[in-house]
Amino acid sequence: MRFKVKLLGFEAGKKRIIVIDDEPAKVMGIHALDRVIVRKGDRDIVAIVNIARYLPHDTIAVYDEVAKALDLRDGDEVEILPTERPASIKYIRNRMNGVSLSYEEVYEIIKDIVEGRLSDIEIAALVTALHLQGMNIEEAYYFSKAMVETGKTIELDRYPILDKHSLGGVPGDKTTMLVVPIIASLGHTIPKTSSRAITSPAGTADRVEVLCPVDLSVDEIKEVVSKTNGCMVWGGALGLAPADDIIIRVEYPLSLDPFFIPSIMAKKKSVGATHVVLDIPTGRGTKVKTIGEAHLIARSFIEVGKRLGMKVNCAITLGEEPVGYTMGPALEAWEALNTLMGNWTPDLVDKATSVAGVLLEMVGVSNGKAVALEALRSGKAEKKFREIIEAQGGDPNVKPDDIPLGDKKILIRSEMKGPVLWINNSVLAEIAKLAGAPKDKGAGVRLYVKIGDRVKAGDPLFEIYSESEFKLDQALKVLEEEMPFGIGRIEEMMLIDRIPTKREHRRPFILER
Amino acid sequence: MRFKVKLLGFEAGKKRIIVIDDEPAKVMGIHALDRVIVRKGDRDIVAIVNIARYLPHDTIAVYDEVAKALDLRDGDEVEILPTERPASIKYIRNRMNGVSLSYEEVYEIIKDIVEGRLSDIEIAALVTALHLQGMNIEEAYYFSKAMVETGKTIELDRYPILDKHSLGGVPGDKTTMLVVPIIASLGHTIPKTSSRAITSPAGTADRVEVLCPVDLSVDEIKEVVSKTNGCMVWGGALGLAPADDIIIRVEYPLSLDPFFIPSIMAKKKSVGATHVVLDIPTGRGTKVKTIGEAHLIARSFIEVGKRLGMKVNCAITLGEEPVGYTMGPALEAWEALNTLMGNWTPDLVDKATSVAGVLLEMVGVSNGKAVALEALRSGKAEKKFREIIEAQGGDPNVKPDDIPLGDKKILIRSEMKGPVLWINNSVLAEIAKLAGAPKDKGAGVRLYVKIGDRVKAGDPLFEIYSESEFKLDQALKVLEEEMPFGIGRIEEMMLIDRIPTKREHRRPFILER
Repeated sequence: MRFKVKLLGFEAGKKRIIVIDDEPAKVMGIHALDRVIVRKGDRDIVAIVNIARYLPHDTIAVYDEVAKALDLRDGDEVEILPTERPASIKYIRNRMNGVSLSYEEVYEIIKDIVEGRLSDIEIAALVTALHLQGMNIEEAYYFSKAMVETGKTIELDRYPILDKHSLGGVPGDKTTMLVVPIIASLGHTIPKTSSRAITSPAGTADRVEVLCPVDLSVDEIKEVVSKTNGCMVWGGALGLAPADDIIIRVEYPLSLDPFFIPSIMAKKKSVGATHVVLDIPTGRGTKVKTIGEAHLIARSFIEVGKRLGMKVNCAITLGEEPVGYTMGPALEAWEALNTLMGNWTPDLVDKATSVAGVLLEMVGVSNGKAVALEALRSGKAEKKFREIIEAQGGDPNVKPDDIPLGDKKILIRSEMKGPVLWINNSVLAEIAKLAGAPKDKGAGVRLYVKIGDRVKAGDPLFEIYSESEFKLDQALKVLEEEMPFGIGRIEEMMLIDRIPTKREHRRPFILER
Repeated sequence: MRFKVKLLGFEAGKKRIIVIDDEPAKVMGIHALDRVIVRKGDRDIVAIVNIARYLPHDTIAVYDEVAKALDLRDGDEVEILPTERPASIKYIRNRMNGVSLSYEEVYEIIKDIVEGRLSDIEIAALVTALHLQGMNIEEAYYFSKAMVETGKTIELDRYPILDKHSLGGVPGDKTTMLVVPIIASLGHTIPKTSSRAITSPAGTADRVEVLCPVDLSVDEIKEVVSKTNGCMVWGGALGLAPADDIIIRVEYPLSLDPFFIPSIMAKKKSVGATHVVLDIPTGRGTKVKTIGEAHLIARSFIEVGKRLGMKVNCAITLGEEPVGYTMGPALEAWEALNTLMGNWTPDLVDKATSVAGVLLEMVGVSNGKAVALEALRSGKAEKKFREIIEAQGGDPNVKPDDIPLGDKKILIRSEMKGPVLWINNSVLAEIAKLAGAPKDKGAGVRLYVKIGDRVKAGDPLFEIYSESEFKLDQALKVLEEEMPFGIGRIEEMMLIDRIPTKREHRRPFILER
């Protein structure tokens, strides 16, 4: 059947979707979410059908992905033809019924996801089934491999290629900004791609972007690495393992993450990594709650890595409180730069040199941590950091004071006396986000105390930074409901929370603008 | 944040969706499929966000459901505010993790589905989880009840109210067109609502529509029933248990149906049924493959019915071949009318009087089947049928020859000799659909033989009816791949299929236009 094209003028989000009125759909026997062939001249694509009412019967509305694929203009004529469901739907159904999938079947599924041939519903069914039934090692390997093969890769023609990744969940974790220059300054190659924040106040790409551009092309990345041995770029637009981004979009509203092993391993393999250290922060608020669980996950990553031809070591790290004293892009870039320049944040240095040390020992260096620490202490790492910033297009002479921080601030002081017993990461992250992070680079939270510090009434606890008074007030409201710190004598602080909530602690804060 | 409205001019399909460009979405910290409040003046609704690229940053595109709810026009200004995820998402997550749901939680989920607050992804996760983990009796009751309470109901102020439903899967099943007039002619109330075909060549609403309108309002239905005791109408636009239609839309691409008990029971409860007979066709090609399985399903329906205050009996029926000799709306209406007028199709009469008989005995009539048969034989049922047709707006004097059948025909004769051993329902249904059914009312298939009949070479097997030569040819192509009949000596016909397919039977057909 022939239709006129109406361009919607925007994208559907990596899916090829057309909209047909329900009357012609009925005539053609097409249902919502069926697939059809869209033909213009001698070019064909497969698109997913949305059924609408009140569209003219001779018109289909098309999203940009379809318009682009067929080079369509308003009023163009296209032919719509029925087509069979992709075989990948059958494979998803089989997987739901407990049939194990061959590599060819996994590849078909991932290919159809990348090419926009599976609807959100079908991807959600796959995600749900894998969440409920678990993904085994073989499948994790298959999905990783298929994600790599359906995307672009960075070919560096070097060996070994080192990389790191953190499972995340700890705010303020600017470890990468130290590990990359340490490793690169010692002559090793580390082409680090990072994500932006999804639900946290800052991702590594957001932090680095305070100092230099991070949105580089594959060719630009190659040039930076050939000059400096390393890079710190945003991986999101490079087309590495693109299936992952689409799957994450479906996982997000469900708060599920069954693909987390393939998701990470595919990204690492796509940049050609041969040696990878995986940081597994553990503790309340992180993804991995216990050390036992961390060991199980570590085994899986190591095994999948082996099958993909990558050597993986895992570092189980402490995730009970933020890393360092800052959360939010600019504050974290400021802290990382300070630390590289010798004004050390002790836990950040310990974590970064430990992680770098593991990586160094994986490629044959003895006493990795000591070597890493020396690279930091000697200023080699700072020098390398500035080289990388310059190669990516930033100012190599940047000083911490040059970094603009939010100028609307509130300092929160303690009303209590005693040791800091616990810190609630997610409350601090929430405050930083309401203050404007990660979009407002200068927004965030700066801590003045960490677990184990002793405070007395009047001592500063933390400071909220924002670029807007309104957002600062929003952030402040969190404190009416939630406490980011537990301070006091342990024998009076054993109750962390009660359900349903009924706050009995008195509010231990004094606000100061 | 304030935006200008751009109307898309068509519906999203019972979901409230707005489209925002990714830049302002980032500023607001909104992700794809998050929910937001859309505010115009003092009116608020909750909508699901789609993120697009290339929309003007100050503009949101809205589907008709949102435009209608807020009475929006192109260029109107609206405010977009963040809102929390509905609690129903948490309940879905809990259910996935094995937590049983309270009635209040199930009600929230169903209400949010009806009000368009859950995305396809979240509904797909629920459907998948219930498919994998199974829905227990308590939940089936809860979901049924919630579906009824979130929709419209038909209040007839009569008692008892009889009803029937078939689980389906057998093509040509026009039983309802006999059961309704039989029951109504005996003075009982039977307000039958039916669906149109989703994947079959005809639904009951499609068949009845050949003879009279079926798209009646609730008030019109009440009037028809008050005049005639019965009706045969389309239930799709009445707003009975509307959650069901939305869930079915998500189940369809997954070919899953975990909601089949609530789906049916909610529709029955919504019309006020007190006594329901459920027809469970069993056999290859139907939904229920074995009699043992049918018994288990029957128990579940009876139990859920009891909790909803409905008496349910189940009739397990033979589903190995089509009911009667016709498939396709007009052919089936023609056969039903003929049968009511005394030109009986034996298996159709046996099935209809058996089902009607069960229903009669449920309300205290002895020898139900004999009573039903007498209503048919005496012409009472035909008289009632014509009354109902007239009350719904059709011609009460319609004769079978008045019904227009497709004028493009092909007769298929046997090249083999022997008994008909099996009939493949799904192949026949496929042929009827490719010939144009259910949209082309005159299209379909007419059988000349059924299982157990003996044929010789040259005997007619079946005839394809169509309204278009092109569709007739399409339908014919099925025969190159598939055989709708198994004919011959049982000792040569034991192989039904092989996988992968390699046809070794010679094609046992002669075509005749």
